[in-house]
Amino acid sequence: MACKPASTLLLSVLLSFALVPGVADGAEPLPSWNEGEAKQSILQFVESVTREGAPTFVAAAERIAVFDNDGTLWAEQPAYFQLLFAVDRVKALAPKHPEWKTQPPFSDLLKGNLKGVAASGEPGLAKILAATHAGITTDEFAASVAEWTRTARHPRFQRPYTDLTYLPMRELLGHLRANGFKTFIVSGGGADFVRVFAERIYGIPPEQVIGSYGGLELRKGADGKLVLMKLAKVELVDDHAGKPVGIQRFIGRRPIFAFGNSDGDQQMLEWTAAGDGPRFMGLVHHTDAEREYAYDRKSHVGQLDKAWDEATARKWTVVDMKKDWKQVFSAP
Amino acid sequence: MACKPASTLLLSVLLSFALVPGVADGAEPLPSWNEGEAKQSILQFVESVTREGAPTFVAAAERIAVFDNDGTLWAEQPAYFQLLFAVDRVKALAPKHPEWKTQPPFSDLLKGNLKGVAASGEPGLAKILAATHAGITTDEFAASVAEWTRTARHPRFQRPYTDLTYLPMRELLGHLRANGFKTFIVSGGGADFVRVFAERIYGIPPEQVIGSYGGLELRKGADGKLVLMKLAKVELVDDHAGKPVGIQRFIGRRPIFAFGNSDGDQQMLEWTAAGDGPRFMGLVHHTDAEREYAYDRKSHVGQLDKAWDEATARKWTVVDMKKDWKQVFSAP
Repeated sequence: MACKPASTLLLSVLLSFALVPGVADGAEPLPSWNEGEAKQSILQFVESVTREGAPTFVAAAERIAVFDNDGTLWAEQPAYFQLLFAVDRVKALAPKHPEWKTQPPFSDLLKGNLKGVAASGEPGLAKILAATHAGITTDEFAASVAEWTRTARHPRFQRPYTDLTYLPMRELLGHLRANGFKTFIVSGGGADFVRVFAERIYGIPPEQVIGSYGGLELRKGADGKLVLMKLAKVELVDDHAGKPVGIQRFIGRRPIFAFGNSDGDQQMLEWTAAGDGPRFMGLVHHTDAEREYAYDRKSHVGQLDKAWDEATARKWTVVDMKKDWKQVFSAP
Repeated sequence: MACKPASTLLLSVLLSFALVPGVADGAEPLPSWNEGEAKQSILQFVESVTREGAPTFVAAAERIAVFDNDGTLWAEQPAYFQLLFAVDRVKALAPKHPEWKTQPPFSDLLKGNLKGVAASGEPGLAKILAATHAGITTDEFAASVAEWTRTARHPRFQRPYTDLTYLPMRELLGHLRANGFKTFIVSGGGADFVRVFAERIYGIPPEQVIGSYGGLELRKGADGKLVLMKLAKVELVDDHAGKPVGIQRFIGRRPIFAFGNSDGDQQMLEWTAAGDGPRFMGLVHHTDAEREYAYDRKSHVGQLDKAWDEATARKWTVVDMKKDWKQVFSAP
């Protein structure tokens, strides 16, 4: 990197502050972000697309921002939280399914043999998802997720999972919305799962949550009322190349701002980058084993390898959690 | 119907006016609607869910309103406009497909033998849709629809199809939005088709347009840029029982207000009606052969039969186009 004299650097930092909306009148945006390239790249991008008359100005209707959820807006270790929900759900349902005692992967799961569960591979995972995410109505499923978010505790932090959102990212969502952006979640997780709490913890309403989804069937319930049954058939895996598909299907226009943290987000970032006009692409890099977790190229959960190389080559913003964030989670 | 003395009726009409937001300060809502039960049922419902402190009050986030498109927001005769687009598109593409001269249903279509096309049934229609709606990128498809809306003219009215929206329904969309509702289209037509013009003609952004959709595939285009290809495989037919499925999948919560015009909307209305709290269900009845069209139980397009019986039995609002609307379309 070429070095600038300190005075020039100072001047450019001061200038960029003067240009940021809201700073002049005292409401400093992104207070949990340390000063640095990541914070500045965000503030400068938002300023550039909202300044009327600027060649980089983008009409409010086109200010679409998309965020991955697991590892980008909330934690994803020691395993995706939805998987931990499924594990808890199997345990809760086990008394009604005595046959699970001898049927893998349920038998392994109930004995706490998670290596055995992992060895069952995709077919095993599909069985667990079918048993916990299908064969019930959408209302029943939402109620079971809501109950779990109230009662379950993260094994390391001993807090509700919905407490483990990243404060700096929630500030970013707010800063974007204050500047006319519409914020969407584009998650590899299930849309029906994330929608239960997205409005409460992120301020993102259900209709702006895109995720993986399965079949639905309209039926008459026992009381004659209509219900929608969740079927085991998966219809969209909203990950990797499925993310641009989900974005097009649900939003119908291309985002100008995208944030992820893993290789599963690479195509979403590429799809965002491939549009015309100003674009912002960002990645959260998990570098903070003390306050959160440190993992990247070799991780089984949230692997960040190819997307990181592409981000470096294309000068996308990479957030170094340890260096860039003053605080990770809200105080308990 | 039990009769009330004229003075009581007059009083209740005056009172209901006084309660309607916006009326007192001179901005009368729904100016193209004649006074009558339909208009009053709409105004009273909106007033009842927006009056703070009322037992019928509904929080703004839950004010979800869904509208069918064909026959509810714009005309659908002599055939669904998207079908007429497909016909025009086959003609435009024919020079590149010499084989169509001898292949039904294309050969019939190109000779103007629409009875022959109709006789080809669903398989024939699927061929026409695949030829006109798939095998191209989402951007190319949107451009072809935009071009068609600029150049094609309705056979009877000799106006662009996008001119043939119902002015009273556009006023209704505006009245709902002015009262904190989020308005969605839930169309049996293709989402990718309706989204091209929904923002311009209805003020409804693409992310609030739900419709039928097919498969999408992320590919690298000839210039190395990413594109999304439209595949021939249909993934959701957003009609009849597909409408509640589309609503749940895209919005993730139940509407409190739904408007349709045909049996294809019956399940959407039933799904809306089956929720708790205040609900509004409405149907447009096409009764005006002079200004628009008159059709219902026996129509091949937009058949209104079972849904009409249910609306009558359950006292849903049925709009009599001839009687309830001062004006149908905007002046040319």
